[in-house]
Amino acid sequence: MTSYETLDWTVGDDGVAVLTLSRPDALNAFDLTMAGELEQVFLTDARDDAVRAVVVTGAGRAFCAGMDLSAEGNVFGLDETLAPTPEEFRAAYDEAPYADGIRDTGGKVTLAIHALPKPVIAAINGPAVGIGATMTLAMDIRLASTKARVGFVFGRLGIVPEACSTWFLPRIVGIQQALEWVYSAEILTAEQLLAGRLVRSLHEPDDLLPAALELARSFVTDRSPVALGLAKQMLYRNSAADHPLEAHLSDSLAMFYTSIGDGKEGVAAFHEKRTPSFTGRAAELPRIYPA
Amino acid sequence: MTSYETLDWTVGDDGVAVLTLSRPDALNAFDLTMAGELEQVFLTDARDDAVRAVVVTGAGRAFCAGMDLSAEGNVFGLDETLAPTPEEFRAAYDEAPYADGIRDTGGKVTLAIHALPKPVIAAINGPAVGIGATMTLAMDIRLASTKARVGFVFGRLGIVPEACSTWFLPRIVGIQQALEWVYSAEILTAEQLLAGRLVRSLHEPDDLLPAALELARSFVTDRSPVALGLAKQMLYRNSAADHPLEAHLSDSLAMFYTSIGDGKEGVAAFHEKRTPSFTGRAAELPRIYPA
Amino acid sequence: MTSYETLDWTVGDDGVAVLTLSRPDALNAFDLTMAGELEQVFLTDARDDAVRAVVVTGAGRAFCAGMDLSAEGNVFGLDETLAPTPEEFRAAYDEAPYADGIRDTGGKVTLAIHALPKPVIAAINGPAVGIGATMTLAMDIRLASTKARVGFVFGRLGIVPEACSTWFLPRIVGIQQALEWVYSAEILTAEQLLAGRLVRSLHEPDDLLPAALELARSFVTDRSPVALGLAKQMLYRNSAADHPLEAHLSDSLAMFYTSIGDGKEGVAAFHEKRTPSFTGRAAELPRIYPA
Repeated sequence: MTSYETLDWTVGDDGVAVLTLSRPDALNAFDLTMAGELEQVFLTDARDDAVRAVVVTGAGRAFCAGMDLSAEGNVFGLDETLAPTPEEFRAAYDEAPYADGIRDTGGKVTLAIHALPKPVIAAINGPAVGIGATMTLAMDIRLASTKARVGFVFGRLGIVPEACSTWFLPRIVGIQQALEWVYSAEILTAEQLLAGRLVRSLHEPDDLLPAALELARSFVTDRSPVALGLAKQMLYRNSAADHPLEAHLSDSLAMFYTSIGDGKEGVAAFHEKRTPSFTGRAAELPRIYPA
Repeated sequence: MTSYETLDWTVGDDGVAVLTLSRPDALNAFDLTMAGELEQVFLTDARDDAVRAVVVTGAGRAFCAGMDLSAEGNVFGLDETLAPTPEEFRAAYDEAPYADGIRDTGGKVTLAIHALPKPVIAAINGPAVGIGATMTLAMDIRLASTKARVGFVFGRLGIVPEACSTWFLPRIVGIQQALEWVYSAEILTAEQLLAGRLVRSLHEPDDLLPAALELARSFVTDRSPVALGLAKQMLYRNSAADHPLEAHLSDSLAMFYTSIGDGKEGVAAFHEKRTPSFTGRAAELPRIYPA
Repeated sequence: MTSYETLDWTVGDDGVAVLTLSRPDALNAFDLTMAGELEQVFLTDARDDAVRAVVVTGAGRAFCAGMDLSAEGNVFGLDETLAPTPEEFRAAYDEAPYADGIRDTGGKVTLAIHALPKPVIAAINGPAVGIGATMTLAMDIRLASTKARVGFVFGRLGIVPEACSTWFLPRIVGIQQALEWVYSAEILTAEQLLAGRLVRSLHEPDDLLPAALELARSFVTDRSPVALGLAKQMLYRNSAADHPLEAHLSDSLAMFYTSIGDGKEGVAAFHEKRTPSFTGRAAELPRIYPA
């Protein structure tokens, strides 16, 4: 188990891990240390087969107050010396699009979250602003406390929404709502979040984490990690495809693979009226998409 | 008129066909015979110009209880002897992606439904589970009885959602709701289906089929089958395109073709304040997309 | 300032322009003159840096009654002599896809609206039918009067929905609602528009334009036109991409560019607790997508 400066990470016996953003004196503001640690936890710790689902929340009264603008230097983690003009930058980028120092810091984190083939649930316990808001979009499902406040406030700072948020947000709330929230850059109340369908439910503050944990457990108890991981990949990737025929290709592969894997046990357990005992491992998902 | 073992198929004078899944003693469970017959009815019978729209429902108290797990052999219709490892399977698949025995059975059915250039309406009269749920996603509009229950239960069996459902479901209910329903694998009530926008309306059991028929008639009465068929293709294909410019290409073709076809009669009837009499045929749609 | 026959165009000191469809005696019906003028206003006048956002409404009691079917000749603006058969048309189109006379007239207008890197708000004050309905879909946000009526009535005339509407409509209201409204071709009430999420809010007739202006001002006051313009491009383009990695590329470019541009002023103003004074110009947006 890695030890982190800005995060708490615990894995329950039920397979549900709780990841807590933990800089409570700074309202869990996001800095480059937290960025690196978040990327690491999703790319390594959370990939362990003992982890079946992840719930993300914040320590203290905030979820995440956004980029820590009190930090020294370039808070965005971008190396300004790399390219003095947009044209040179574009050229440098075309040459090495995934070079560190050029890549959006928030996006490195959300791509790591998105790539985890396990349910990830945000329990938004308080203010979630800027990257604190956009990081939740890459999580599969959002629950919020009645004290939650979410703001896509980039426009007030002269910058753009990042962390792949423009890919995720319209898929969750529709293009019209997404445009208004980004244009307005306002702090949204819990009620607005529910009405706009950004969050699936509101909870009293003390009930939030228990509700998120219960939901996570309901997803993984007596389930095949392989079937769950493939279903996550399929929902995101196939829904973005141009034609259902593309889904049919991955469906056929995934159905074939699971029907000779955990599906055999699932059907047997169904016939024998017993709880299935799946042996497939999320760490060894079959590849159903081209690299 | 073909005769079917597992289906009833009737075409009304109003052009609205009713397709009834009809294995009531087995809650209309889906087996390989039903799969083949569904594919055939949508690829042949429903293509007849006498058919203007299709309403699909179930005989007895269920819509479709899902894959018939009591069947002998491989219930999924996949030939397990084709490829012993995922790597070999992938190789075989790359070589012959649409070979029978490798293709997901449910997907063959939903691709046939999707390809019909006519409105298809699901009248979900009772339980619709597994493939019984996913087949309705390829239908354009879903009405449900207050006794309807829908479950994307694949995760409980160790298998994945199929039948191109991961392409359709997020388009209908959004990605967050789709992820939760697939992760939870729960049986959803009629009220949950309406709140989540999977179905457009709820009806008392006796009112369901009449409401579906009335809606279907309202779509086709005094309408051009060519304009309707093209509009269906355009809504699905253009909304999945990367840029509105792609829509502009097919729009231009479709507007040109209809404006020198049924559009002439439509505008003339408008001027003469009479009901139009369209002569275009759905069986001869102009090709507005590359093959 | 260009002078228009069918439009009124005024730019306020607050940077909010009001574009009024102005053929009130004809319920602002759309003809080829209006089409050309709309294209011009969005490609030229609205691009001026003095314009920060655009509100579109109709003069008199209608928004736009649709294509003016009383006009002489081919009302759709398509040159019927170009290609007598669909095959020849297709061949001509493949050769010169953007030739005038082949292109859907409504689409030329909506592509011009869509390309403007500034918020565009529809204030639907009354009936909006046919192209009067579809042109609003390319606007970012729709407000409606309680007297608004919207109809995608193409099917009644034997023609198809155009103006890239099949790209936009499902993104706004979901595929099921889009299919029903296009199939039914009915005139929808203000309440139906709100329930179906086509419009974000309803207003008493006298309150509509003030509400739209206030919303527009809230989007642009003390904001960076560069950040706003890039955010609009990103929301539409990235949400249509196949994978969040595509968003990550443009995010990285846009974050880099804004963080060395207006973002510097935004962060400085934040630290100094003052209103930012941005100097970036929408007329000089950095290119963050391939041509």
